[in-house]
Amino acid sequence: MKNENNSRVKIIPLGGLEQIGMNMTVIEFEDSIIVIDCGLSFPSDDMLGIDLVIPDITYLKENIDKVKGFIFTHGHEDHIGAVPYVLKELNVPLYATRLTMALIDHKLKEHSILKTTKRKVVKYGQSINLGCFRIEFIRTNHSIADAAALAIYTPAGTIIHTGDFKVDYTPVFGDMIDLQRFGEIGKKGVLALLCDSTNALRPGFTMSERTVGKTFDNIFSEHRMNRIIVATFASNVDRVQQIINSAYKYGRKVIIEGRSMVNVIGTASELGYINIPENTLIDIENMKNYTDEQIVMITTGSQGESMAALSRMAASIHKKVTIKPNDTIILSSTPIPGNEKAVSKVINELSMKGAEVIFQDTHVSGHACQEEIKLIYSLLHPKFSVPVHGEFRHLKSQAEIAISLGIPKENTFILRSGDVLELGGDGGSVSGHVQSGSVLVDGLGVGDVGNIVLRDRQNLSENGIIIVVLTLEKRSNQLLAGPDIVSRGFVYVRESEDLMDEARLIVSEALEDCLSRNISDWTKLKNVIKDSLNDYLWKKMKRNPIILPIIMEV
Amino acid sequence: MKNENNSRVKIIPLGGLEQIGMNMTVIEFEDSIIVIDCGLSFPSDDMLGIDLVIPDITYLKENIDKVKGFIFTHGHEDHIGAVPYVLKELNVPLYATRLTMALIDHKLKEHSILKTTKRKVVKYGQSINLGCFRIEFIRTNHSIADAAALAIYTPAGTIIHTGDFKVDYTPVFGDMIDLQRFGEIGKKGVLALLCDSTNALRPGFTMSERTVGKTFDNIFSEHRMNRIIVATFASNVDRVQQIINSAYKYGRKVIIEGRSMVNVIGTASELGYINIPENTLIDIENMKNYTDEQIVMITTGSQGESMAALSRMAASIHKKVTIKPNDTIILSSTPIPGNEKAVSKVINELSMKGAEVIFQDTHVSGHACQEEIKLIYSLLHPKFSVPVHGEFRHLKSQAEIAISLGIPKENTFILRSGDVLELGGDGGSVSGHVQSGSVLVDGLGVGDVGNIVLRDRQNLSENGIIIVVLTLEKRSNQLLAGPDIVSRGFVYVRESEDLMDEARLIVSEALEDCLSRNISDWTKLKNVIKDSLNDYLWKKMKRNPIILPIIMEV
Repeated sequence: MKNENNSRVKIIPLGGLEQIGMNMTVIEFEDSIIVIDCGLSFPSDDMLGIDLVIPDITYLKENIDKVKGFIFTHGHEDHIGAVPYVLKELNVPLYATRLTMALIDHKLKEHSILKTTKRKVVKYGQSINLGCFRIEFIRTNHSIADAAALAIYTPAGTIIHTGDFKVDYTPVFGDMIDLQRFGEIGKKGVLALLCDSTNALRPGFTMSERTVGKTFDNIFSEHRMNRIIVATFASNVDRVQQIINSAYKYGRKVIIEGRSMVNVIGTASELGYINIPENTLIDIENMKNYTDEQIVMITTGSQGESMAALSRMAASIHKKVTIKPNDTIILSSTPIPGNEKAVSKVINELSMKGAEVIFQDTHVSGHACQEEIKLIYSLLHPKFSVPVHGEFRHLKSQAEIAISLGIPKENTFILRSGDVLELGGDGGSVSGHVQSGSVLVDGLGVGDVGNIVLRDRQNLSENGIIIVVLTLEKRSNQLLAGPDIVSRGFVYVRESEDLMDEARLIVSEALEDCLSRNISDWTKLKNVIKDSLNDYLWKKMKRNPIILPIIMEV
Repeated sequence: MKNENNSRVKIIPLGGLEQIGMNMTVIEFEDSIIVIDCGLSFPSDDMLGIDLVIPDITYLKENIDKVKGFIFTHGHEDHIGAVPYVLKELNVPLYATRLTMALIDHKLKEHSILKTTKRKVVKYGQSINLGCFRIEFIRTNHSIADAAALAIYTPAGTIIHTGDFKVDYTPVFGDMIDLQRFGEIGKKGVLALLCDSTNALRPGFTMSERTVGKTFDNIFSEHRMNRIIVATFASNVDRVQQIINSAYKYGRKVIIEGRSMVNVIGTASELGYINIPENTLIDIENMKNYTDEQIVMITTGSQGESMAALSRMAASIHKKVTIKPNDTIILSSTPIPGNEKAVSKVINELSMKGAEVIFQDTHVSGHACQEEIKLIYSLLHPKFSVPVHGEFRHLKSQAEIAISLGIPKENTFILRSGDVLELGGDGGSVSGHVQSGSVLVDGLGVGDVGNIVLRDRQNLSENGIIIVVLTLEKRSNQLLAGPDIVSRGFVYVRESEDLMDEARLIVSEALEDCLSRNISDWTKLKNVIKDSLNDYLWKKMKRNPIILPIIMEV
């Protein structure tokens, strides 16, 4: 494919680097825009009280006439999770493979979104035409079936987006990644490669998911008399398949527990992406009819998520499962950075109940390590390298790999959200920046909690709040009631009565002083209250609660 | 040593398992009590706004007549950090090796505690007599010099407490652990071993600290033209020594940065526990007089602690150091579980500034791995095993090691804080439980923040607060002013004016309804306000802020 004219194609990430998980990439050429993935992210520690984070789609709304559709690489939350929120604002066609689309459908149903949106299931090898683009879906391997890389044929050249992928020569479900097609496309010339960077810091080759199956077999064979409970990611359908295989082999019934596990496995099973032998699945209500050695429970909570099924079992607040010394519990997933402490807590709690806990830190990941990344670069030999999917250090590591394979440094681009990268036969450069960022979802509110509110929450959480109320007479400006002092999250008041009395006195004096000097401006009065109380509390306790003066007028 | 009578010795941990870090163990025999270590712990994620956590010493206060002294195994925060707080309540003699005592003294000075407390420096091999106990200090290795194990000779038999230790045949400072003395004591008979469990899940042998020195040499030799910044634990004096060695070898000056780094290295250097060649140390103010290749900066912040020097450099808020592309930054410590995300953040920020970041995840720890633990058990051959220092799963792993070495299962004890373990020639058992737990320190307040305050802070942090104020006339109960609604941490009010107006209307109506029905009980009025607003906000937003009604009377 040759770039006939000198026009350039734009690549604009609208999420990613600043808020990991929120994957969304815009490909734009003249009057055509397509969007790859539409993921959500979970709040970072400083986003207090926030449930979810979704990308700011202002740029898409402003260019809605150009937007031809959303294309999805696979069905994980960080790639499809924001769809219900985005569809409420944009009615744009969706394109995905079968399992991915089924998982999107499930989301839309949960959000009661009317199905007026065009949704088209695409097969591997099939292409769709959107505006001036042709998009081909290419088979890859990942920890969920139906993962696809995308070949995007643009007037400026071919762009390959790998999606999340690994090279698995012996996948649990379906066939291996279509390396031949990568080679074929590469031979014709590739403008740019947008490649998964998650494991770009890890040398070597990611082991086949199938290797985990053998370790399950070993554990099952060594624990024939125990009840076995396995916790893993609900989204790791292939892992669940292998647990079911081992269960069947060792004559055990399988119980699926945890909301997202039931959802994902239900959907995968309906569509034939997971093979559950007849009479293997039993309902949790029927567990009592079986002995320990006849049961395997597959559950959520391998990351120590506080409300997941395994965590509730560990904390003795699960309604249907009580952990016993005869339980063998397998945690089958490597902790995501930040979850280590929560995972330890669950392991400790389960151990204290006498259960044996096996921490199966397999490091068998769904993402390509360095040698796989090199393989894809070698098959495609792109002109430009645009690492995606990872923290800065991961993207940087992939850029270094690309350079080590002969791609000029000036042809590698580490993009921040909103960066507009323009690529063409004549070169590439970041030519501008569009609005992008995170929109916080709290309950039903989308975007109504911003930085000011978060800063208040942070402050409240560390120091609490002291409210000072008083009533003034309208004309005379005389103090009719108060100042009363109420606090929350500050000190245990019953044991700090002296402190509160003294604080009240301090405020009263400062206030009387103002009023006697005929200061009647409320802003001034409030500042005097704040300052006097602040000084007092800092000197006395080295603490800085939020001080909120409220003046009423009668 | 033979137990002449059948009397038993008591071992009571007052901290540890429930709040890792807060190490404090009581050894009691009739009218004699000694206390081993007095550590503090850092707050867990749910202890919002808390600075430190110290052990509840009610049991010691109730038995103050028996308490003969505090014995310290080494000078790390989790073993000496609570001393200033505890000494304010108990005036008891302190016994420690030289460096440990110097670090304690430094703490006492910081807290301006009068030096009326008896403090005695003890040498390795030396014994002290306290009540019916004789306590011998035995040389061990750890990541700080002057670490000691304790042999406690009691009328019921000998108890060995290892403190934090590893077996380092080639320590950076001083001599190797006194394995011969362990053997000698073991030959005479040991009642109980309280052994460090930190690495009881890790197979093999901890590498010598000295091996890290070679990797520093390699990095220094490969980065001759770069400014080098090394972040590590301030408490890891031996690591700092090796950085200084490499600096000297490669002709660089050393800058020490970060408050705790300056403190610990200052103390260690004064006492001769660290060897800094003349003219090697320079002040940070003089950095400008040297070129990049002449400088090594040793700094705090290897764990991503938000206020530590390296984190401030990464966030561009350090007053004296600006990170540049010519910097090579070494993070020389394995992240403590829970800190992984913060460490990643710092690495990403430094990388974005163009610096090269070397993450030296050495796994060279200061704590014994499984083979070292086996060695100590084999030298001492104790009758009872009481694993200490670790999470439940670590203690359990050590108990399993002990059992594998022939100690009967019923002679291994995993104790919770406050458990009273009684041991004697006739056997051992947990015979009771004493008060123990965590005391929270917030600013200057010790213990004035409890569960109620923490629950409020948690709630405030997730949902914010809405305050409803109104003024009633005293006799008529007529509404004179309000209800006014003020919120913090709830929504961004300027963009939610309609919502707040509607909320005010809802409350007004509920209130008018009450007042018209002559309901004048404030508790009832407040509940009506809370319920009506709660209902409205949950239906409208699926949120649950704290609602705080305040009624004034004129």
